[in-house]
Amino acid sequence: MSELQFSPRPDKKELDESRAFSPKFDANGLIAAMAIDHASREPLMLAYMNEESLKMTLEKGEAVYYSRSRQELWHKGATSGHTQEVHEIRTDCDQDALILYVEQVGAGACHTGRGSCFYRRIEGPDGTLAPTGEGRAFDPDAVYGTS
Amino acid sequence: MSELQFSPRPDKKELDESRAFSPKFDANGLIAAMAIDHASREPLMLAYMNEESLKMTLEKGEAVYYSRSRQELWHKGATSGHTQEVHEIRTDCDQDALILYVEQVGAGACHTGRGSCFYRRIEGPDGTLAPTGEGRAFDPDAVYGTS
Repeated sequence: MSELQFSPRPDKKELDESRAFSPKFDANGLIAAMAIDHASREPLMLAYMNEESLKMTLEKGEAVYYSRSRQELWHKGATSGHTQEVHEIRTDCDQDALILYVEQVGAGACHTGRGSCFYRRIEGPDGTLAPTGEGRAFDPDAVYGTS
Repeated sequence: MSELQFSPRPDKKELDESRAFSPKFDANGLIAAMAIDHASREPLMLAYMNEESLKMTLEKGEAVYYSRSRQELWHKGATSGHTQEVHEIRTDCDQDALILYVEQVGAGACHTGRGSCFYRRIEGPDGTLAPTGEGRAFDPDAVYGTS
């Protein structure tokens, strides 16, 4: 078990200016984390961390998330080799969200083979999606096996 | 009520490549949305939307969130005048997260008076926070009133 302990949550006003890290985990024990490429500043993926995975991320220097669908710790890249080396972590005013500036090892962050998971934009109020133009950076079947 | 209807969720493989927008709302009816400045590409804030606020966002072209703490619709800027004009919305591979590229009207997105809510970074594994250097862009007491 980690020896790292987060600070207790102070009141709201103090939280905004505090130098103590007091992350807020929601009713399911999770906090949202957006991974952004530290060099290009392009968003890569949005995932969640529980307390244990956040501590592991801080200690390893590699992104460890918590998979909501599989309900287990998710060391990003453990299967694909596409780990995320953490350069910087930021938190927001009320400390209930995180940004990870990372170096994405390997060709991409997305299981579809793309560099970023955000490869489609909404075209109009009818909700049709259009590709942003980003193609596959790797072949997912070769990396993850055929499904 | 909005007449906008989102598509039903297809199976996982189809979802990744679909041109239909089928956002996934969690057990609380929410989806995470990261607002990013469309010009500077700097992240501004992370908040949540329910189905109604997402539809309102698409129809108004301004960001409408759902406040988890107040449990109500939150038309960003309704109090401060600091609305967010939506330039583009992206969704991710499994369509359970959103990025809003916005033009932040007024001086900043954060209730503390800063341009971005992500104004502190974690300095090391002990979890001390350090300012990123971003100062206040406006006086929050003048905009929101003293608390």
